Amino acid sequence: MKAVKVGLLGLGTVGGGTLAVLRRNADEISRRAGREIRVAAAAVRDLAKPRDTVDGLKLTADAMQIVDDPGIDIVVELIGGDGVAKQAVLRAIDNRKHVVTANKALIALHGNAIFEKAQQRGVMVAFEAAVAGGIPIIKTLREGLAANRIEELAGIINGTCNYILTRMQESGGDFGEALAAAQQLGYAEADPAFDIDGVDAAHKLTILASIAFGIPLQFERVHVQGITEVAAEDIAFADELGYRIKHLGLARRTAAGIELRVHPALIPKRELLANVGGVMNAILARADALGPSLYYGAGAGAEPTASAVVADLVDVVRAVTTDPENRVPHLAFQPGSLAALPLLAIEQIETAYYLRLKVLNRPGVLAAITRIFGDLGISIDTVLQKGRGQPNQEVTVIMLTQVTQERHMNAATAAIAKLDTVTGDIARIRLEKLS
Amino acid sequence: MKAVKVGLLGLGTVGGGTLAVLRRNADEISRRAGREIRVAAAAVRDLAKPRDTVDGLKLTADAMQIVDDPGIDIVVELIGGDGVAKQAVLRAIDNRKHVVTANKALIALHGNAIFEKAQQRGVMVAFEAAVAGGIPIIKTLREGLAANRIEELAGIINGTCNYILTRMQESGGDFGEALAAAQQLGYAEADPAFDIDGVDAAHKLTILASIAFGIPLQFERVHVQGITEVAAEDIAFADELGYRIKHLGLARRTAAGIELRVHPALIPKRELLANVGGVMNAILARADALGPSLYYGAGAGAEPTASAVVADLVDVVRAVTTDPENRVPHLAFQPGSLAALPLLAIEQIETAYYLRLKVLNRPGVLAAITRIFGDLGISIDTVLQKGRGQPNQEVTVIMLTQVTQERHMNAATAAIAKLDTVTGDIARIRLEKLS
Repeated sequence: MKAVKVGLLGLGTVGGGTLAVLRRNADEISRRAGREIRVAAAAVRDLAKPRDTVDGLKLTADAMQIVDDPGIDIVVELIGGDGVAKQAVLRAIDNRKHVVTANKALIALHGNAIFEKAQQRGVMVAFEAAVAGGIPIIKTLREGLAANRIEELAGIINGTCNYILTRMQESGGDFGEALAAAQQLGYAEADPAFDIDGVDAAHKLTILASIAFGIPLQFERVHVQGITEVAAEDIAFADELGYRIKHLGLARRTAAGIELRVHPALIPKRELLANVGGVMNAILARADALGPSLYYGAGAGAEPTASAVVADLVDVVRAVTTDPENRVPHLAFQPGSLAALPLLAIEQIETAYYLRLKVLNRPGVLAAITRIFGDLGISIDTVLQKGRGQPNQEVTVIMLTQVTQERHMNAATAAIAKLDTVTGDIARIRLEKLS
Repeated sequence: MKAVKVGLLGLGTVGGGTLAVLRRNADEISRRAGREIRVAAAAVRDLAKPRDTVDGLKLTADAMQIVDDPGIDIVVELIGGDGVAKQAVLRAIDNRKHVVTANKALIALHGNAIFEKAQQRGVMVAFEAAVAGGIPIIKTLREGLAANRIEELAGIINGTCNYILTRMQESGGDFGEALAAAQQLGYAEADPAFDIDGVDAAHKLTILASIAFGIPLQFERVHVQGITEVAAEDIAFADELGYRIKHLGLARRTAAGIELRVHPALIPKRELLANVGGVMNAILARADALGPSLYYGAGAGAEPTASAVVADLVDVVRAVTTDPENRVPHLAFQPGSLAALPLLAIEQIETAYYLRLKVLNRPGVLAAITRIFGDLGISIDTVLQKGRGQPNQEVTVIMLTQVTQERHMNAATAAIAKLDTVTGDIARIRLEKLS
């Protein structure tokens, strides 16, 4: 059968990896797909840059040239961002070309419009590589778990954050030291904000939640919190209490609506997610028929991401002969049948909490605090006082609460902060028992 | 669009679960599939048995009646075994009906012939539920990892064995006690041989290996060993040395050929697989582009298995409009392009070992043993002598070796067993470092 001709937009880390994998495993891939998948052209930023892997490949500096090339069957967008990438993807769809992309920002922010256009034009937009690198989590949720009502997703979906928190855990060092190490190893960008502030994880969570629950992509409704405020002492106290601190993306179906949130959380050490270290990613899914299941693997890197890009290529190659209405829908559910489930504000979510505060060592201090919790209906699980402290000197108190609504916890911490025996800020991290 | 009509062969645990999931999640499933999936008829063993979930369902005691019914689009075979089940599946294919099955024995033993016939007739045979219950591992290997050369699979793929070993680990009890507990909880059959002797795991490994490596199904070439000889003291010694004992299915690509083996193995405690407890299943895949990835979930039970059956139904419903040659191939690779890779005999495999032996406490005993290892090129990692022992009294010695070929270890243990200072049998368990 005729080879499928692919145009690559971008020959950076992932583009180079994709080319390498397609060439190295050409035999296995065409034994699987039933057709050869050939990269015919690539768009690069700098044509003058010397490259060693591009023999036989048509190079251009103009992505639109590939997008408009009638000889190209599938466009692979690996430029990133939502500038040229967005333009190129929309024009490729207009030209009735299938698209494979690794661009999570593009899908999270503009996916609804992109998929609508793709539906009209009868083409596929595949984006497995946009979430959790090479872990086939989109396929799993969309196809593997198709029998289920999915109740919850909890994921370690940003390798940079997970590396930093793992390193803080192992070395006892602080955030700055761990970030510097991550940058030195190439696990964090020179400007790391996108990762450590949680935006990248929120893009991925947006996509996962949409596919799990059959709702439109709604990035702007995700509560986003990064890891910059996680202190070394919180990691140590959590450890002492039997927990690890992980940066989680959480999507949960509740009776009141959908919770979508990205933030650090304590999770019990014995849970598999707590044992996912370094730059690895993992997603725990809870579904009504299957129960809990977990998917673990490399969330970034040239070849792990290429693994997902090429799997999408194989899928597209296979599906080209399918009636468009019988293809796997972009967001798992048929277009037109997405649900308008309410998304909850962060104040409405329910979770347990870890609190760290400094108090003056005086009689009645803990009684005043626990009364505030009691009045708001918040139960306390554990209280830990660190250091003995002379009378009237500062001591650190750690508390673990039971599950409550976040607005009650907001009221409680506001009231506690006003006590004149409480000095300094109150550190607060959500605590999730997942299994 | 017209509803797809399904005929269920078998309304036992999995059949009942499939019916329950299809009904409970009918709305979500048809929002995904784009069509209603309706169970129109079911074959049961005993028509007289009272049932509460079968309103509106045509029941028959004759599976062939469903297989021959022109109103049925897809036959779901949940009878098990390779008697009636095999007959019914082959006849359904002859009648150009698609088939979904959870029958691992049928696929492992007769899959090559079944898929050949399905290919000729242009129908699909889907069998996600045959391996690891609801974990979508077939889809993952076949589609999600399609870019990769898969190097290794290591799986906990029998929940009964994993429950028994987990219980022995936690309670310190012996095999018999743990088996009795598993039987009481319904995790082991009254006749547990199929599970505890490793045959069930070998069926599943046969299927996984074929899909991973693109080789024909070759059940008869799997080295199969169960867990009946794992002693409580081995679990305790392994724990002391930093390992857990798990029952593994292992498929490994080596320069010499493919290793296919099912047996108990020590694995380091910090590995995720070591932390998969109870009846849960997990499969670790190592692939050249993606690296290691792991898939965890329920490996059995009514609804977890139904989750896989129904996912297959959705896949088949979607793929009916696809050109047969563009569908996902049954064994991942296109028919006619399976590879004739050599499968290694168990003597040729390479692994490390845990050994437990009883020796008389005399000078030179260990020297004699280590000389035997040295002569065969086997390096020893750890030696642990349990109990002090009076001169000439029995003491237990535990040894961990480095990786060697099994035939060398066979020669070594044969020679050691002949030493007159070695009393009783030598317990030997393979040791696998997977990550």
